[in-house]
Amino acid sequence: MNERLFEKLDLAYEDMIVIRRHLHMHPELSFHEVKTAKFIHDFYADLGVSVQTGVGGNGVVARVKGARPGKTVALRADFDALPIQDEKDVPYKSTVPGVMHACGHDGHTAALLQLAKAIHEMREELAGEYVFIHQHAEEFAPGGAISMIEDGCLDGVDVIFGTHLWSLIPHKTIEYLTGPVMAAADRFEITVQGAGGHGAAPHQTKDAVVIGAQLVMNLQQLVSRRVDPIESSVLSVGSFIADNAFNVIADSAKLSGTVRTFSPEIRDLMENEMKRVVDGTALANDCEIQFNYFRGYPAVVNHKEETEFLKEVAEHIPGVDAVVESKPQMGGEDFAYYLEKVPGTFFFTGAKPAEPYPHHHPKFDFEEHAMLLAAKTLGAAALNYQTR
Amino acid sequence: MNERLFEKLDLAYEDMIVIRRHLHMHPELSFHEVKTAKFIHDFYADLGVSVQTGVGGNGVVARVKGARPGKTVALRADFDALPIQDEKDVPYKSTVPGVMHACGHDGHTAALLQLAKAIHEMREELAGEYVFIHQHAEEFAPGGAISMIEDGCLDGVDVIFGTHLWSLIPHKTIEYLTGPVMAAADRFEITVQGAGGHGAAPHQTKDAVVIGAQLVMNLQQLVSRRVDPIESSVLSVGSFIADNAFNVIADSAKLSGTVRTFSPEIRDLMENEMKRVVDGTALANDCEIQFNYFRGYPAVVNHKEETEFLKEVAEHIPGVDAVVESKPQMGGEDFAYYLEKVPGTFFFTGAKPAEPYPHHHPKFDFEEHAMLLAAKTLGAAALNYQTR
Amino acid sequence: MNERLFEKLDLAYEDMIVIRRHLHMHPELSFHEVKTAKFIHDFYADLGVSVQTGVGGNGVVARVKGARPGKTVALRADFDALPIQDEKDVPYKSTVPGVMHACGHDGHTAALLQLAKAIHEMREELAGEYVFIHQHAEEFAPGGAISMIEDGCLDGVDVIFGTHLWSLIPHKTIEYLTGPVMAAADRFEITVQGAGGHGAAPHQTKDAVVIGAQLVMNLQQLVSRRVDPIESSVLSVGSFIADNAFNVIADSAKLSGTVRTFSPEIRDLMENEMKRVVDGTALANDCEIQFNYFRGYPAVVNHKEETEFLKEVAEHIPGVDAVVESKPQMGGEDFAYYLEKVPGTFFFTGAKPAEPYPHHHPKFDFEEHAMLLAAKTLGAAALNYQTR
Amino acid sequence: MNERLFEKLDLAYEDMIVIRRHLHMHPELSFHEVKTAKFIHDFYADLGVSVQTGVGGNGVVARVKGARPGKTVALRADFDALPIQDEKDVPYKSTVPGVMHACGHDGHTAALLQLAKAIHEMREELAGEYVFIHQHAEEFAPGGAISMIEDGCLDGVDVIFGTHLWSLIPHKTIEYLTGPVMAAADRFEITVQGAGGHGAAPHQTKDAVVIGAQLVMNLQQLVSRRVDPIESSVLSVGSFIADNAFNVIADSAKLSGTVRTFSPEIRDLMENEMKRVVDGTALANDCEIQFNYFRGYPAVVNHKEETEFLKEVAEHIPGVDAVVESKPQMGGEDFAYYLEKVPGTFFFTGAKPAEPYPHHHPKFDFEEHAMLLAAKTLGAAALNYQTR
Repeated sequence: MNERLFEKLDLAYEDMIVIRRHLHMHPELSFHEVKTAKFIHDFYADLGVSVQTGVGGNGVVARVKGARPGKTVALRADFDALPIQDEKDVPYKSTVPGVMHACGHDGHTAALLQLAKAIHEMREELAGEYVFIHQHAEEFAPGGAISMIEDGCLDGVDVIFGTHLWSLIPHKTIEYLTGPVMAAADRFEITVQGAGGHGAAPHQTKDAVVIGAQLVMNLQQLVSRRVDPIESSVLSVGSFIADNAFNVIADSAKLSGTVRTFSPEIRDLMENEMKRVVDGTALANDCEIQFNYFRGYPAVVNHKEETEFLKEVAEHIPGVDAVVESKPQMGGEDFAYYLEKVPGTFFFTGAKPAEPYPHHHPKFDFEEHAMLLAAKTLGAAALNYQTR
Repeated sequence: MNERLFEKLDLAYEDMIVIRRHLHMHPELSFHEVKTAKFIHDFYADLGVSVQTGVGGNGVVARVKGARPGKTVALRADFDALPIQDEKDVPYKSTVPGVMHACGHDGHTAALLQLAKAIHEMREELAGEYVFIHQHAEEFAPGGAISMIEDGCLDGVDVIFGTHLWSLIPHKTIEYLTGPVMAAADRFEITVQGAGGHGAAPHQTKDAVVIGAQLVMNLQQLVSRRVDPIESSVLSVGSFIADNAFNVIADSAKLSGTVRTFSPEIRDLMENEMKRVVDGTALANDCEIQFNYFRGYPAVVNHKEETEFLKEVAEHIPGVDAVVESKPQMGGEDFAYYLEKVPGTFFFTGAKPAEPYPHHHPKFDFEEHAMLLAAKTLGAAALNYQTR
Repeated sequence: MNERLFEKLDLAYEDMIVIRRHLHMHPELSFHEVKTAKFIHDFYADLGVSVQTGVGGNGVVARVKGARPGKTVALRADFDALPIQDEKDVPYKSTVPGVMHACGHDGHTAALLQLAKAIHEMREELAGEYVFIHQHAEEFAPGGAISMIEDGCLDGVDVIFGTHLWSLIPHKTIEYLTGPVMAAADRFEITVQGAGGHGAAPHQTKDAVVIGAQLVMNLQQLVSRRVDPIESSVLSVGSFIADNAFNVIADSAKLSGTVRTFSPEIRDLMENEMKRVVDGTALANDCEIQFNYFRGYPAVVNHKEETEFLKEVAEHIPGVDAVVESKPQMGGEDFAYYLEKVPGTFFFTGAKPAEPYPHHHPKFDFEEHAMLLAAKTLGAAALNYQTR
Repeated sequence: MNERLFEKLDLAYEDMIVIRRHLHMHPELSFHEVKTAKFIHDFYADLGVSVQTGVGGNGVVARVKGARPGKTVALRADFDALPIQDEKDVPYKSTVPGVMHACGHDGHTAALLQLAKAIHEMREELAGEYVFIHQHAEEFAPGGAISMIEDGCLDGVDVIFGTHLWSLIPHKTIEYLTGPVMAAADRFEITVQGAGGHGAAPHQTKDAVVIGAQLVMNLQQLVSRRVDPIESSVLSVGSFIADNAFNVIADSAKLSGTVRTFSPEIRDLMENEMKRVVDGTALANDCEIQFNYFRGYPAVVNHKEETEFLKEVAEHIPGVDAVVESKPQMGGEDFAYYLEKVPGTFFFTGAKPAEPYPHHHPKFDFEEHAMLLAAKTLGAAALNYQTR
């Protein structure tokens, strides 16, 4: 039966690429994925598959029932893009200025659509039910997962699988891990409220650029000095905006960034210590600094049994050369929420291209053939789970 | 004769306010002052005064000839605005988002227009010629002065006077100074070219926000450590832009700012030491940092004889309570170029309002009555210069 | 047999305390442990045990042979102290200004001496041979272990066990771990060579204090930005000395510190990136900075079989309430060298006092009763290893 | 009469050098100048001049009366040295480790002693009285001047003159200035009280080295951001001491330094802003930081009449090639206290050697011939003042 599926997917590979490149050229930001959702809906509608749009926002859910009773298996792909300017020089480069699929969600979606089509075609010979969760807004907290779950996407589901194409893992490799595999991902916003003025008269101002720079420097010391070095943590200030005339001292500066941790204690520590550094910097500079800390996704914690099942499935996928234990990743994923509700696992599909860039880089791309392996692994997991 | 002039100006004061507020509500950025230039042109055209537009760009020059031969006296007002969001709560608040007359140029222009009208009306009783230089683009190097001079605005001129309304000098005070009175004002742009990436994977990136923050901190030490403390100097980073998604480590950061100095040696030192700090920071972070230093206006150096003349004139303006020696100002002014060509002086007219803010502040405003005193002082200087 | 040993140790506990407090009052710095070595030697000599001094420096090795053939088991305790001023208020406070047993080596030595005495007394009923390695200079690279090994302390040894009393692990707890358990511990020295001068004339100097402060700040970013957050690393600048008159700008500043890592790749990365930061800082400040990096002990990597054996032994020690898996420690230990030569394991004995301070703190102390548990665990491991 | 004096001084020049080099080889720290004071006393005692020791501490005052009544003129030289290691390679190098005449006080003393001898020899032909004030402890607040004045050294004095040999002013040049000529010189001490611990466990500590480095960086911004750039100010951290084992995180760090200002407002501002930065840094790091600010000497303010008199005198000293107006110096001088009590002036005698170093540099030295010019100028001022 796996062989039938693999054959169908091999034949669908060209279409997969076409879909991926179409999505890549028309990326949409988190919570604004209107055209992408419509594209997904239309794909299912054209096949005659039952499909529901507007699930928890822009989410789309399709369900295919096999001929016989069985387990209900959910497979999830996300489909939002990032506010990054595409700097690749390829024919399928983003056509939207400042927006880009720089994380591979286009590939997730293309793979899942073609897998759904294959499963739909095979439905007469299958047991159980297959739920294809096309999730919007993975990149921006609170994310799409939580509202899609509230809106019923997991109803009746017994198990869930998901994968991430990964540009820094070699192609033809699958990585799995039991337990915490992706970090809690929080967001913060800091507004330094100084006092602007003429660039030539600093003593009449409170220079928000200098105060912001102090903050950036001092915040770097949380990871290096205040967190147990055995624990993993990240604090990145992604954005620093004090947009002024060159000869005007900045009235204010806006900083935003992300904090990643695996344990609740370190998560609390980071938030508290940030507050302390912010307050001290405000005092030292006699200014006000607003600090907001938004808790994002919790850590993704893979279930043991399902992870071992997935590992075994992956070892039998033709084309997969290596199935290895992963290290935990500092990235966040709202797949975490699904795993709080139902058993399952989230794994990585190696997709390293010839010239690899990290995820979220303006030149990010991935080896497209990895989409085929992702589809085969997810598909085999779904089918085999019935007879486990 | 001065009394006739002062009477006319007293009567014109209401109109002066109307003009100033009109300009205040419709500010235009340096080198983009199209409507303002037309407004000035139309004012003169309506009076029947000979007026020339497009002088060296958006500059406007009007000339009024007295009935008798005499000296040719130039008076100058600038009319560009700044890229600052007006945060005042007044009826005449700027109507242009992000653009504001935050330096008083609207007042300069209103005062000079009404002064020109008065002189025009008195022309039959006057000797000499009066050149009203309405200069665009004072706020942004290379400035409008240099091209207006090239385009002939100083042709035949014997002497020039200019003033700046100043929100931090008490109303009814005139400040004068022989020698260097305003600083050389240079501009710099720095682009940190790091390597972007996912906010959770700093080790795969070169974090442009952190590198930029290091630069800001280290550049502060030029003034505090490398310049002779007896010498005055300023280095302000006005703008710091790394505009990213919060969870994306910045690929690049753009900094711009201004350097103010009075002596050529310190000016060279600052440029050279900035280069050194930039190069060292690039080496320490294994990244590229582009550094461009643009020499702006030289120092404004007032002529001794004309400054003493102006001082004496000011002491006899009704309504002026104090005429005091100024301290040098760190601000730059392209009035410097006029004084390289013809004798003259540039003075400050106190215009401190009830709630004063420094120039270039989002809440900057000035005491409008100071426009009247500025017009009287400039006018008396122009008339008296004939009989000096 | 274990019971006999435990009884003897219970009786020896008072003597253990006496020895420990004597050593605590008379600490000696690494490589200068002359009196301590003599104390140890005399203890064995008084018992009539064969003892060798001057082993690889100040090391002392005693050997006790059982009546029957068997395995040769080595047990190790270190005995050097630290250059820290004792700030405790106890009767057994250090009598040597600026030198202190702030890491518990006095306790290790006292426990091992009484254990040796007990084994010596039981020798007629024992199989095998027991090697008591009293090691000097654990605190300061290159350490005493490497030269003691070269000098033969491991000759004929089949297995080695060692423990560390730990003030932050609860009393009555033993912690074990297979694999890397303590970090590679390197040392660095940085000399900023600026240019001194009068405190009022910074522009004639290159301020070594400011340059040193820049270095400290920028070095903090190696851990936070350049090391994979999943990997553990530490960089601490322990010492910063620019000792001048208050009104003299420092000619030079000396910094020294430690780097801790677990993997050879991160170890190389840290050294290389430190070099980069040093070079960039020197360039930015137009000065010379000398940088020396001294590789210290490699990571302590416990052997699997011996660790599991030790765990089982520990679970049967009366008085031990908990035997738990340890986290890796960032501290370094030259026990690493023994484990490169023979199988064995290094474990932690909880010794948290009522008011705990971290190791190397001026108020460090430990729960003395933990010495007894350490002696029992090491002793039981040695005896039971014969019949494993 | 001046010629007679100049002849005597020319003949005394060799002895001047001998004295200077003797003092240079035997420097004593401020408030510890026992041998130097005795040397000075003995010099006068051998001449039979009335001399008083123990004036306000280690101060020495000699008085020579002319044959006729006249003005009482005081001349002052200081004689303390600095805690700096002499790094010159000369035969008269300091013999005291870590102590050095790195500011020229040895030269001041040698010049004044030989001048006193010459005036003593000429006393029969002179009017007035001459008070030779040999002041201890100029380098360290509260300084010797204030207590010597309290102890009567200015009793009956009509005018006072003093000079400083200056290694960065060309030899044969005298510099004078009316008004503020040297800055108010304050001292501060900062103790960062962190929490020490093992270098591998930063999260259990509050790292005093890192906190101290933050302070150094942020204090640099007072001069660059908070003081009006037209005003002169200096803040130098001269000393940073956190003296630890390399692998111990510092419990505390001691910083000390100097602040220089000319105006009382800026002096207050600097102290207040330092306090603010210290408090903010303590808050940000959850530690205690003690801050003590000691007001040192006020600004040296030269009297107008006496300065103009001195200028004229200097223009007639043979061997002096240039008499020029000085710039204010950021250095402090407790000569300020004398000028608060009696009229007078403090001037600079150029003493630039072939290879010049700034004052307080380990390689500082001066052109010895300048001592002769200093003696002649002080002497001529004293004699001519009688007939002014």
